[in-house]
Amino acid sequence: MSQTHTPPQVAILGAGLIGAAWAALFQHHGADVRVWDPVPEALSGVRARMAAPLEQLAQVAPDAGPPGKLTLCDTLADAVSHADLIQENAPENAALKHALFAQVEPLMGRDAVLASSTSALTWSDLAPGLNDPARLITAHPFNPPHLVPLVEIYGTDLDRIARAEAIYRAAERVPVRLKKDATGHIANRLASALWREAVFMVQDGIAEVEAIDTALVNGPGLRWSVLGAHMAYHLGGGAGGMAGYLAHLGPSQERRWAALGTPSLTPDVQKALVDGVAREAAGRDIPELEAARDTALIAMLRARREAPHV
Amino acid sequence: MSQTHTPPQVAILGAGLIGAAWAALFQHHGADVRVWDPVPEALSGVRARMAAPLEQLAQVAPDAGPPGKLTLCDTLADAVSHADLIQENAPENAALKHALFAQVEPLMGRDAVLASSTSALTWSDLAPGLNDPARLITAHPFNPPHLVPLVEIYGTDLDRIARAEAIYRAAERVPVRLKKDATGHIANRLASALWREAVFMVQDGIAEVEAIDTALVNGPGLRWSVLGAHMAYHLGGGAGGMAGYLAHLGPSQERRWAALGTPSLTPDVQKALVDGVAREAAGRDIPELEAARDTALIAMLRARREAPHV
Repeated sequence: MSQTHTPPQVAILGAGLIGAAWAALFQHHGADVRVWDPVPEALSGVRARMAAPLEQLAQVAPDAGPPGKLTLCDTLADAVSHADLIQENAPENAALKHALFAQVEPLMGRDAVLASSTSALTWSDLAPGLNDPARLITAHPFNPPHLVPLVEIYGTDLDRIARAEAIYRAAERVPVRLKKDATGHIANRLASALWREAVFMVQDGIAEVEAIDTALVNGPGLRWSVLGAHMAYHLGGGAGGMAGYLAHLGPSQERRWAALGTPSLTPDVQKALVDGVAREAAGRDIPELEAARDTALIAMLRARREAPHV
Repeated sequence: MSQTHTPPQVAILGAGLIGAAWAALFQHHGADVRVWDPVPEALSGVRARMAAPLEQLAQVAPDAGPPGKLTLCDTLADAVSHADLIQENAPENAALKHALFAQVEPLMGRDAVLASSTSALTWSDLAPGLNDPARLITAHPFNPPHLVPLVEIYGTDLDRIARAEAIYRAAERVPVRLKKDATGHIANRLASALWREAVFMVQDGIAEVEAIDTALVNGPGLRWSVLGAHMAYHLGGGAGGMAGYLAHLGPSQERRWAALGTPSLTPDVQKALVDGVAREAAGRDIPELEAARDTALIAMLRARREAPHV
C-alpha cells in the first residue's frame, strides 16, 4: 500500500518475563510499546529482561525493519490511553485481574482491545471484570512468547479479534481462534493430554523419563513441528486419507484410547519424575537448559522461514 | 579408530515403502544392504521406491561417506545368511510374521539380530514365532523412517539390543529402549493420547480441525521438536524445576487431566475430521502433502545439525 502507516500502539501491563518477551517482540516488529507495572523496580528492570529476547529476535527475524519506540510509563493512564492493543500479564488471579481491568476500562480507547495472556484462567473467568466484556479477549502465548509463534485467542467481538490478530500477525505471531471458551485453551489441553500418558509410562515402568523425552523429540515432536496431528492421520490413511484411516483403523484407535493410562502424582511417581529430569539435565541448570532450548528453537524457526510447515 | 571396519551387513525383508526407506537409509550410511521380498514385482520395484529417499538423505546427511552396496536377493537365504541385522517389514499380521520367522531363524547367524518394524504388534505377540525369542527385537521406526530419527526398541537380550543400536546409530538413528513391552511402544502412545484430546476438541466444538493443527505446529509441537514433555514441565517450574512444579501445580495438573475429554468416532465426528483435513489440505493431494512434510522435515533436521535439541 502506498499510504503511510502509523505503527500499532501496544501497551504491556506487567513487566515480568512474559511482559518483557511481549515488549521485545512488538518493539522488534516496529510497534510503539508502552510498558507499565505497579512495582517501580519491576518496571525499571524491564529493559534488562528485554535484552536477551531482542538479541534472539534479531536472529529469528533479521528483516523486521526499524524497531518501534519503547516507553516505560509511571502511570497506567499513560500506558493505555492511546493503545490499540493492551496486553495484560498480571499474576494468574482472577480477583487481581478484575481489579486491574476496572482501572483500565475507563482509560482505554473505545475501539481498543484488552488482551489477557492468561494461561490458567478463561475468558469467562475474566469477563466479569469489565462493564463491557466485548472489550476483552484472551490471547495466550506459548512460552517463550517471543520465539514460539502461537497466540490462542477467544473473545466475543469478532471485529476486535480481527484487529488484534492483525497486530499479532504484524509481529509474526500465528493467532488461532477458539470457537468456545475452554480451560487450557488448545495447546495446554494437548500438552496436558500428552504429559498424562508420558507420566503413566513412567508410573507403569514402560520407559524412563529421559527415554520418553528422547522418543518425543526425535519422533512425534519433530513431526508435529511440521505436520499437525489430524493431518498426520490423514497421511497415515494412505490414498484414502482421513476417511480411509477412520474406516480401517478407527476401531483400533478407539481401543488404543481405552488402553491409555491414568496416572496419579503419588510420592513415588513424583520422585521418578524429579530423578528422571535430573538425569536428563545431566548437570545443566535451568538457565542453561533454557538457553539450549532457545538456541534450538531459533535454528528451527530460521529453518521454517526456508521451508514452511505443512 | 585405526583398524579397518567391515561395513554392517543389513538384510531388509519386505520391499514396500517402509522397507525401501530402511534400505535407502542403511545404504546411504555405508551398510551393505540385501533386500528380499516374496513378491518378485515388489523386489524389482524397490530401487524406484528408494530414489526419493536417497535424494533426501543426500540433503540431510551430505557427509555420510561412500554409500554401501545394494543387492536384491531372489532367496531369503541369500538375504539373511550373512546379515548382522535383519529388519523385517512384513504386513502387520502375527501369523504371517510367525511363518516368516520360522523360515528366517534356521538361516540367520548365531549372533544376528532379527528386528521387526512392527507398529501395531508387540514383542510378546511376535516372540512365539521363534525357537529362540532372544534373537528377536522390536525396532519401530516413525514415519518416514529415513527422515525421523527415532527407533523404539524392545527385546530381552541386552547384548543383541546393544549391537542393533550400534548399527542404527551408525545410520544416524536415535534408538530408545522400552523397559517393558507395550502396545504402541512409546511414540504412538503419546500420539494417540494427544490425538484423543484433539478429536475431543473437535467433537466438543472448542476449535476447528485446522485451528488445532495450526496451534500444535506453531506451539507445543514446535517446542517438542527441541524439548521433551517432562523437561518442559521441569522448565515450567521456574527455579524449583520439576519438584517445584509438582509441589505448586501438581494438584491443578491432576484436575486438568480429569477435565480432558473422551471422544467417540461417531459418524458426525468422522465427518468433521474428514471435512477439517480437507479444508486444511486446501486442494493438496496426499503426495503433495507428503512432499511438503518431507521438505520441512529436511530443513528441521539440517537446522538440528547446527543446534541440537535439549
